[in-house]
Amino acid sequence: MTLSDPPFSSSSLRDSPFVRNLWYVAAWSHEVGAGGPVGRIVIGEPIVLFRRTDGAIVVLEDRCPHRHAPLSMGRVEGDGIRCMYHGLTFDMNGVCTSVPAVAAIPPGTCARAFPAQERWNWIWVWMGDPAAADPAQIPDAFGLDDPEWVMRADALDYAADYQLLHDNLCDLSHLDFVHEKTLGLASGSEWSNDFPQIRSLPDGLLIERWFLNNRRKLGSDVELVDTWSSYRFVLPGMFVLSTQSFLPGTAAASAFAAPSATPLFRRRDQQIVTPIAPGRSRYFYATGLHVSSAAPRHIDGIFAVVNASFAEDKQIIEGQQRIWDATPSDRRKTFLPQDKAPFQFRKLIERRLVAERAESNVAVGVAGARS
Amino acid sequence: MTLSDPPFSSSSLRDSPFVRNLWYVAAWSHEVGAGGPVGRIVIGEPIVLFRRTDGAIVVLEDRCPHRHAPLSMGRVEGDGIRCMYHGLTFDMNGVCTSVPAVAAIPPGTCARAFPAQERWNWIWVWMGDPAAADPAQIPDAFGLDDPEWVMRADALDYAADYQLLHDNLCDLSHLDFVHEKTLGLASGSEWSNDFPQIRSLPDGLLIERWFLNNRRKLGSDVELVDTWSSYRFVLPGMFVLSTQSFLPGTAAASAFAAPSATPLFRRRDQQIVTPIAPGRSRYFYATGLHVSSAAPRHIDGIFAVVNASFAEDKQIIEGQQRIWDATPSDRRKTFLPQDKAPFQFRKLIERRLVAERAESNVAVGVAGARS
Amino acid sequence: MTLSDPPFSSSSLRDSPFVRNLWYVAAWSHEVGAGGPVGRIVIGEPIVLFRRTDGAIVVLEDRCPHRHAPLSMGRVEGDGIRCMYHGLTFDMNGVCTSVPAVAAIPPGTCARAFPAQERWNWIWVWMGDPAAADPAQIPDAFGLDDPEWVMRADALDYAADYQLLHDNLCDLSHLDFVHEKTLGLASGSEWSNDFPQIRSLPDGLLIERWFLNNRRKLGSDVELVDTWSSYRFVLPGMFVLSTQSFLPGTAAASAFAAPSATPLFRRRDQQIVTPIAPGRSRYFYATGLHVSSAAPRHIDGIFAVVNASFAEDKQIIEGQQRIWDATPSDRRKTFLPQDKAPFQFRKLIERRLVAERAESNVAVGVAGARS
Repeated sequence: MTLSDPPFSSSSLRDSPFVRNLWYVAAWSHEVGAGGPVGRIVIGEPIVLFRRTDGAIVVLEDRCPHRHAPLSMGRVEGDGIRCMYHGLTFDMNGVCTSVPAVAAIPPGTCARAFPAQERWNWIWVWMGDPAAADPAQIPDAFGLDDPEWVMRADALDYAADYQLLHDNLCDLSHLDFVHEKTLGLASGSEWSNDFPQIRSLPDGLLIERWFLNNRRKLGSDVELVDTWSSYRFVLPGMFVLSTQSFLPGTAAASAFAAPSATPLFRRRDQQIVTPIAPGRSRYFYATGLHVSSAAPRHIDGIFAVVNASFAEDKQIIEGQQRIWDATPSDRRKTFLPQDKAPFQFRKLIERRLVAERAESNVAVGVAGARS
Repeated sequence: MTLSDPPFSSSSLRDSPFVRNLWYVAAWSHEVGAGGPVGRIVIGEPIVLFRRTDGAIVVLEDRCPHRHAPLSMGRVEGDGIRCMYHGLTFDMNGVCTSVPAVAAIPPGTCARAFPAQERWNWIWVWMGDPAAADPAQIPDAFGLDDPEWVMRADALDYAADYQLLHDNLCDLSHLDFVHEKTLGLASGSEWSNDFPQIRSLPDGLLIERWFLNNRRKLGSDVELVDTWSSYRFVLPGMFVLSTQSFLPGTAAASAFAAPSATPLFRRRDQQIVTPIAPGRSRYFYATGLHVSSAAPRHIDGIFAVVNASFAEDKQIIEGQQRIWDATPSDRRKTFLPQDKAPFQFRKLIERRLVAERAESNVAVGVAGARS
Repeated sequence: MTLSDPPFSSSSLRDSPFVRNLWYVAAWSHEVGAGGPVGRIVIGEPIVLFRRTDGAIVVLEDRCPHRHAPLSMGRVEGDGIRCMYHGLTFDMNGVCTSVPAVAAIPPGTCARAFPAQERWNWIWVWMGDPAAADPAQIPDAFGLDDPEWVMRADALDYAADYQLLHDNLCDLSHLDFVHEKTLGLASGSEWSNDFPQIRSLPDGLLIERWFLNNRRKLGSDVELVDTWSSYRFVLPGMFVLSTQSFLPGTAAASAFAAPSATPLFRRRDQQIVTPIAPGRSRYFYATGLHVSSAAPRHIDGIFAVVNASFAEDKQIIEGQQRIWDATPSDRRKTFLPQDKAPFQFRKLIERRLVAERAESNVAVGVAGARS
């Protein structure tokens, strides 16, 4: 894959390939209870998630090494899992520990184990080389547990390539159009009339801007505020937004840089895109209101707007996917200033893909074909 | 594509390719109101239809040149349309007229415009070279607006190749079997016991025959009549039928040629097949009763029979498509006298396809690869 | 296709090819009444089944030789069938006997006829070379009509390759896991704690074992019995099981070989797997209770357990198919002692496939390409 000039022409790759060496989110923590195992697909790989007796998360390939039945249809037993087709049991490392009526388990009978971490109320899975799995690479987010914040969380499936969701999150100018009557209206701001400041981070982008004298509505109250919007969009495809509103004049008093005053209103949004398979993605999202901002009950109204907005995103992005599917791959797209952030993030993913391909070629050259 | 001898063996092309330089029907006029735009797919191309302030029809590709979002999810503004993903606006020619927060629109930012015409209450779109679009090539039909006629209209989607629908309409001997208890019965005629007269037209066929002393039923009345059935089937796939009944003996008095007397009963049928994509078609149809023939209320009974009949066609043709899909491409079909008209029409389409391919090769040879 | 060592690695052929020269079951006898024809697909071939006036079964390809409309949408007339698209009629051999308005039927106008037999209340169709069709090759089963047996029958569609169903039926150790709370529980036996005796038959396997002192439940009664379980699994994929229970001690008294005493309880299960198309199968099954075993009403409770169990099989096998579809074809599977019978049966099918391929190559070499 190369990104030729002009940018985005490589979007001809209608279904993007996947970077393997990343921590991906497979589930909300609360989706995996003490009971049954949960089957998911991440970057095309079926995996099974379950909890050990101490509550820690185990992630194995969702494939019994015997006859490839899904372990997610199995039963958690102790710290391991039993395949409920023929009864083989596996420990938390995926090593087979028993086969009914068989004393000598054939060597190599195991399901691949994936490094897993639970952080920010998400279950993260490392889909690449296990030796390279470093929990320190899990990006910072908010989580749902801070007592100062009232949070709501949910998830949504998309019949669309994950990079179309990234594009959407990297350029919020769409709020005025896709979300004209929902999120755009609720924000009281014009998102498309100016460009935010974009800064590169090692694994993504920091995108910030002030909205001056915008109308912020909370319940039936409307007030004029200066609003500071600051979000990171980082690998694997995580969006973490802080929204803070102040008395009018605060932006100018802060020299239009990041504010230091205590906000009148604070909101958090934490979202992440997980590629399921070509043309299929899953979107995990949460929104929170600081307890100092308003009565906690306001979160329900805010989250209803979030849900309505994400239904709008889903509609236009899945529509976009259908058009991409009907479009010859060499068809050019117009590059606009709005595309700077989406393009930079696509470049970041492309660099990872190219590096992984090179590495894979080296490995193949030295060690021969992968067994 | 070549049609080898014997005919129809080329039906191995299970999904027919499409002629581009034709006027196709994209919608009934009444399907595109003053409000929202309408998205359709014609010969594999997503298009968007909307009306200018003066009511004229605009047809553009259904693809914003920026990020390929569907314009049919956009908003009609004045004589143009706004993409509701990032807010770009386009005029009736598909030229981008504004980009939010961007002064200099990148050159070439446009959606392709398709020549469009509104005639016979249908919206016609020219899918080929715009320079070759000649409204005079739109074939004659009846329309729905003649005050002397009471009309009903509808449309139906098919999971079948458009040429299977053509075959069906070119050979009405199937009325005795597919429509044994509906249209065939209502017509009071035996369609399969003899062959109609087939004459070539520049763009299709004229198919005519007399039915002598047939039982025509209208409401609870049954009368014996001589019936003159005359229809054209012409490119792109339009069926226009005139049915006239007379006192018995009129056929002989007309020397079995076209009648000149005033009919006791007159009916019109106007139908057209539009290829959507390989294996998918849309069928637009209307039926009318002349006010002199019967009380206008009879049209509802007649149209109910039409709808029941077309459900029967849909069932057998989609069944036929499934069998074609399961059949090796070199499997021969028996050629019968009934197939003369279907075969001639397939030949007509084949000649157009061959000509377009030749033209395209010349263009490529002279001008290099199509941009 | 070759089965390399270790076994099952050829399962990389996710969708198995089909042996042609076999009797396959297309329907239960009672599914094809005197009325309308029934369309089915067997090993990818659309076929139509109907009865002659004397009740005998006719099987033709489900494809009119004229325009390939499905004959299963036609009408049975006498001993033949009429295509209800254009009215051609065919006799029980598939030979066209009339064409509306056409005196001279073009030579070769016929639908292929398939040898068919009705036995064990199943309709068997020979999908290969008709000259090789020998009814004596239809394997023995029980049928539904023996007055000494109360039987129930049904069928189930699978979105799975037929060989995954074979694997399931060749190794009943899965009863303890897949059917832990249904069939496994009802049998009162531990199926996975030991291995049955497997004997080769010319066309399959004979699999037998004793269960000692197992708890057999019938209605609310529970009794301790010795149970003899004996089943054949033979081509094309038929499972015929006899279950007989005796007073405890009978197994030892029989020297752990087949019993000769009169059983307290007798049950029969007759099942067959028919490949429909790649990744799609149909499963016909029946269960019976000997009138001497219990009141006939008990069959309903037993059959309810059977239906519940087969819903469990369908769930795990379709899950397994989804995992296979997501698994690289070179991924190894662990071979266990449990796999001996499934593997032997896969080898049997492979030998047939290899033989048919060789034969087909010889035929092509001598006679040139198949017309």
